[in-house]
Amino acid sequence: MSTQEMAAIRAALAAAGREDLTIAETRALYETIAPPVDPDDRTAVELLDIAGCRAEFATPEGAAGDAALLYLHGGGYCLGSLNTHRRLAWSIAKAAGITSLAIDYRLAPEAPFPAAVDDALAAYRHLLDRGMAPSRIAVAGDSAGGGLSLALMLAARDAGLPLPGAAFLISPWADLTNSLPTIASKAAEDPMISKARLDGFAGAYLGGADALQPLASPLNGDFAGLPPVLIHVGTAECLLDDSVTVAGRLGAAGVDTRLEIWPDMIHVWHFFAPMLGEGRDAIAAAGTWIGEKLRK
Amino acid sequence: MSTQEMAAIRAALAAAGREDLTIAETRALYETIAPPVDPDDRTAVELLDIAGCRAEFATPEGAAGDAALLYLHGGGYCLGSLNTHRRLAWSIAKAAGITSLAIDYRLAPEAPFPAAVDDALAAYRHLLDRGMAPSRIAVAGDSAGGGLSLALMLAARDAGLPLPGAAFLISPWADLTNSLPTIASKAAEDPMISKARLDGFAGAYLGGADALQPLASPLNGDFAGLPPVLIHVGTAECLLDDSVTVAGRLGAAGVDTRLEIWPDMIHVWHFFAPMLGEGRDAIAAAGTWIGEKLRK
Repeated sequence: MSTQEMAAIRAALAAAGREDLTIAETRALYETIAPPVDPDDRTAVELLDIAGCRAEFATPEGAAGDAALLYLHGGGYCLGSLNTHRRLAWSIAKAAGITSLAIDYRLAPEAPFPAAVDDALAAYRHLLDRGMAPSRIAVAGDSAGGGLSLALMLAARDAGLPLPGAAFLISPWADLTNSLPTIASKAAEDPMISKARLDGFAGAYLGGADALQPLASPLNGDFAGLPPVLIHVGTAECLLDDSVTVAGRLGAAGVDTRLEIWPDMIHVWHFFAPMLGEGRDAIAAAGTWIGEKLRK
Repeated sequence: MSTQEMAAIRAALAAAGREDLTIAETRALYETIAPPVDPDDRTAVELLDIAGCRAEFATPEGAAGDAALLYLHGGGYCLGSLNTHRRLAWSIAKAAGITSLAIDYRLAPEAPFPAAVDDALAAYRHLLDRGMAPSRIAVAGDSAGGGLSLALMLAARDAGLPLPGAAFLISPWADLTNSLPTIASKAAEDPMISKARLDGFAGAYLGGADALQPLASPLNGDFAGLPPVLIHVGTAECLLDDSVTVAGRLGAAGVDTRLEIWPDMIHVWHFFAPMLGEGRDAIAAAGTWIGEKLRK
């Protein structure tokens, strides 16, 4: 690792981190710090409306048109958009050699649970309606979007839909009670996530709903029958134990599971790929894994 | 997976499994079921005596002579030998393109804890004394040998020795109290391991020593500073949670960790590589990983 690269990212996060912002201000800040796509990117974009949400179906140059990454962005169910995660979603799809679909699912507190799950499921149905074979779809997401990826698969199974061919979870948030050991033990190392922030997001998203139900905290779901799952998480993360616990429960349910714990990496380091070698390495490795799983 | 291949292995295990055998009889049975090396294998072998134990330093054709796999066989600290695991050790070393050192460490109940740790440490010292750079040594082992690989690294650190460059653990047994949830929840699926067998092995090995001490149950060790660790475990294993818990604690300690949970695979399925495609796939994948980590 380039210690210098990570130090620069930590310094930028410390400068941007302010506890006194409103949700609207935090959303606006997030838009400004998100890395844009390269000006010479040759991805073709189809703008869509799915269940009233803006969505983008993107085809990288040379990608297999019969396979797709359904990407669900992070932001605690309260922040984030197509804009903030376009570069990340596209780069993973490009690394896998497939198309991508991203959706601006409704955010809390305006649209509480289960709005995000409903919108994610609508996006998945859209891919099936396009004629995409489920075995050629990979669901992916970071942070809240990682938890939402799991919830989407549980919801799809509940709705009698066929499951996707693979799932890739980046630092997933899967326990909305925020009570696993690393929430506290990694607090000093984690420059982005704190129990206070997570509790705030969870409160806004749940709007009084039960945090333990599987579609909100998919950690508690029945994972039997889920497709292969790859999880990326850093050692410098409060959410490390969400990943470890999800991996253990996936394995106990018989699911093909790979958990990669990357040393010194922070929450969703893939987001910082333009200035971080490990971000680029992680995206490339995930793309290879997705490509292999969708080939089978 | 070939369901047929696994069904044949399960049938063979069921036929071989007898609860009424003495330790001497079980050791003899283990020798007969272990797959031998191929007759046309061109590995060069140097026979050694390390701390009074037989040992074999093996060089596959074309292997890098400056790097080694230190292989610690499984068998509950009571069974197993150079013979039973020669094929497995050599195949991993060959896949990584490096030499291997295997040692007939003393077995319980004749030689209880910490005899195995002492002998493993002597083998590691032997590699260092040969002039092997620690960063070019990978420690590996299956089942009890996986736990012993972790214990060896803790013991090496305690002894002030430099740590190896990587570790590869196959279905490691790391908690000699045998109390994690999958010990019970996977009992019906696991054709090889049961709590009764594990308790018998633990009693024989510990000989009254404290099961919780880190060199016996390395799950309880301080993993800070350990090199990258790859763990392979199957979903049809009582020892699944040993692997998940070890992975979580490695990650919490900041260690580069990869946990792969293979669907439908049984305890140390790599052992059955001659008749199981996933055994060969797992060995090839581990070899690639070891080669990459030792290159850095």
